Amino acid sequence: MKTQVAIIGAGPSGLLLGQLLQRQGIDNVILERRSGEYVLGRIRAGVLEQGMADLLREAGVDERMDAEGLPHDGVELAFDNRRVRIDLAGLTGGKQVMVYGQTEVTRDLMAARQATGGTTLYEVDDVQPHDLDTERPYVTFVDKHGETQRLDCDYVAGCDGYHGVSRESIPKDRIKEFERVYPFGWLGLLSDTPPVADELIYARHERGFALCSMRSETRSRYYLQVPLEEKVEDWSDERFWEELKRRVPEDVAAKLVTGPSLEKSIAPLRSFVVEPMQYGRLFLVGDAAHIVPPTGAKGLNLAASDVNSLYRLLVKVYHEGRTDLIPNYSRTCLRRIWKAERFSWWMTSMLHKFSDEEDFGSRMQQAELDYVTGSEAGLTTIAENYVGLPYESLE
Amino acid sequence: MKTQVAIIGAGPSGLLLGQLLQRQGIDNVILERRSGEYVLGRIRAGVLEQGMADLLREAGVDERMDAEGLPHDGVELAFDNRRVRIDLAGLTGGKQVMVYGQTEVTRDLMAARQATGGTTLYEVDDVQPHDLDTERPYVTFVDKHGETQRLDCDYVAGCDGYHGVSRESIPKDRIKEFERVYPFGWLGLLSDTPPVADELIYARHERGFALCSMRSETRSRYYLQVPLEEKVEDWSDERFWEELKRRVPEDVAAKLVTGPSLEKSIAPLRSFVVEPMQYGRLFLVGDAAHIVPPTGAKGLNLAASDVNSLYRLLVKVYHEGRTDLIPNYSRTCLRRIWKAERFSWWMTSMLHKFSDEEDFGSRMQQAELDYVTGSEAGLTTIAENYVGLPYESLE
Repeated sequence: MKTQVAIIGAGPSGLLLGQLLQRQGIDNVILERRSGEYVLGRIRAGVLEQGMADLLREAGVDERMDAEGLPHDGVELAFDNRRVRIDLAGLTGGKQVMVYGQTEVTRDLMAARQATGGTTLYEVDDVQPHDLDTERPYVTFVDKHGETQRLDCDYVAGCDGYHGVSRESIPKDRIKEFERVYPFGWLGLLSDTPPVADELIYARHERGFALCSMRSETRSRYYLQVPLEEKVEDWSDERFWEELKRRVPEDVAAKLVTGPSLEKSIAPLRSFVVEPMQYGRLFLVGDAAHIVPPTGAKGLNLAASDVNSLYRLLVKVYHEGRTDLIPNYSRTCLRRIWKAERFSWWMTSMLHKFSDEEDFGSRMQQAELDYVTGSEAGLTTIAENYVGLPYESLE
Repeated sequence: MKTQVAIIGAGPSGLLLGQLLQRQGIDNVILERRSGEYVLGRIRAGVLEQGMADLLREAGVDERMDAEGLPHDGVELAFDNRRVRIDLAGLTGGKQVMVYGQTEVTRDLMAARQATGGTTLYEVDDVQPHDLDTERPYVTFVDKHGETQRLDCDYVAGCDGYHGVSRESIPKDRIKEFERVYPFGWLGLLSDTPPVADELIYARHERGFALCSMRSETRSRYYLQVPLEEKVEDWSDERFWEELKRRVPEDVAAKLVTGPSLEKSIAPLRSFVVEPMQYGRLFLVGDAAHIVPPTGAKGLNLAASDVNSLYRLLVKVYHEGRTDLIPNYSRTCLRRIWKAERFSWWMTSMLHKFSDEEDFGSRMQQAELDYVTGSEAGLTTIAENYVGLPYESLE
């Protein structure tokens, strides 16, 4: 088999990259270890920056998003039993975010790929990139019939997440990892109940952080900060709802509609970045190169901004012969990534409980909330990061 | 002896409070353990927020400051061998800071007190407040002739700094202390050389933080981050200048005029706050209640904002009988103090070297500098804090 761009991973980044390239006549094959149903079953992010929504439009995958997605002009911070609205649109010259589940984005991208006849090979095993530092890289894998296959290509896009083979294919001495692990996780609950508020509420509370989020007008997503060692089995739906009510302002708790959970799970929080994000003809994209804690909803959006950079790079390479831009990929991505890592780390640091007692650190959190919510400039720093900083140019 | 307000400490806060009260016909006596010359010999801060400059004007102590002080419209951040100017005035609707040494402020306040005939007792020993939780507090001390004296008063203002007796007079179980100690200090050098730049330069460097500051057009003040265990004897002037040149951008280093030091000393960095700042009829003011690391130049300015609150409170008490406002003092001060503590901690965290290697923390510093210096909102958050947030109202 031969293609121009081998894409490893059929999550939203791999699919979006494939679709964008497809529309520019750049041939690509996507390899995915799991089945399509498995990929769709992952419950993940649900807040799209305007830049990502625009990129989906550029990929022609916007019909259902624009029909069913919920544009949000604002977001709320809650603390000290009060709520402060951050007027995203007003503070950023009209920018919004779009609430539309990652699962839906993936579903739309899968449908689009099917419609354009792009090749996605699901349930392939032992995916392994080779000769990445040569001009003739290739990827080997075992297809779902048990046959070993070889895919020759010009470039490899590593869209296979934190645990994927792509980053592992780079010699250890050619990359450096940066990491921060947080001493808590998020217990998430999905339910077919109407969201408690029209906009997301990020709540700091002495019992721990809570987030009221949503996927649609009838499906809610709530999160609670929990100790890392907590077991999801110890959290009945009832216990979850009771704890949530304690952590949000009273008027929010009073309006909360509870119901049976569709899904409940605990995810650890981590900041992670690898530098550089390229090696020879391999480009890392999204979670393969970086993880953010979910406070601030940057994970999927950062993957989209990497896709944006790689897509534009490959168009320049194939349509204009601009191979001179290739070395710029990592630097272009990282500049925006580090700023999003900063925002995610800062939001996490400001809103979570780190200590059992009131100490200098917790007073810093309170002072930070007091300052930023009382200052137009402070509110703007949250708003402009939340809607997404501008995409960086490759030049 | 009898007075209305007993002020412990004749540093700039005690003297400023005394002068302001004096002009409102509120009788006060200042008690100081040291001599006037000793107080003047302390080399301290030199950047006055507009609010403090205005308060000095209200106290009638502005003639020399306005003639000799240097109004600054901007301040610089230096990193990655480049300089970014923060247009303080442009970002804050015209606010400035005034470069005028604490020593000069103290000298002016001493002269003003002498002119108005206010009583300052220097070189008094064993100052001890009594019966603070009653309606008849008093202060005992041994005067410079060795006589034990008793000063009856309505209220006591504790302006005697971190090591003073005032905070120590509050029962331990009535206050809570918050503290953060930093793993480094500042080595400061004062010299009669022209400042290297018109405005202050705060420099982040892989060798450690440096600050180019000044006291006048002919007197410079420079600082270097050093390990806490460093000895000032190990730092010849030559070594200091060489190290400073390494830490600032090349164009700054090239312009640096060196010369013999007038003073050289190492100060530790600390964040400290006590809550509440009052006990019965005792009010803590300035360093007696809180310390900030010097990055951001907030120490003296915070003392001035406490003075502002206490002064306005006592005027309301004596002229309008508004004793109902007394319980508000601590809360009023602390709201602004915690925000200044946050700013000082944040500037310190962003600009100092914490680790010998490039790690997640140092990348956060770089991302923070990259973000704030590239965002109008980010620059404004620095500018509005640097010139000083508004004074809080007592009501």
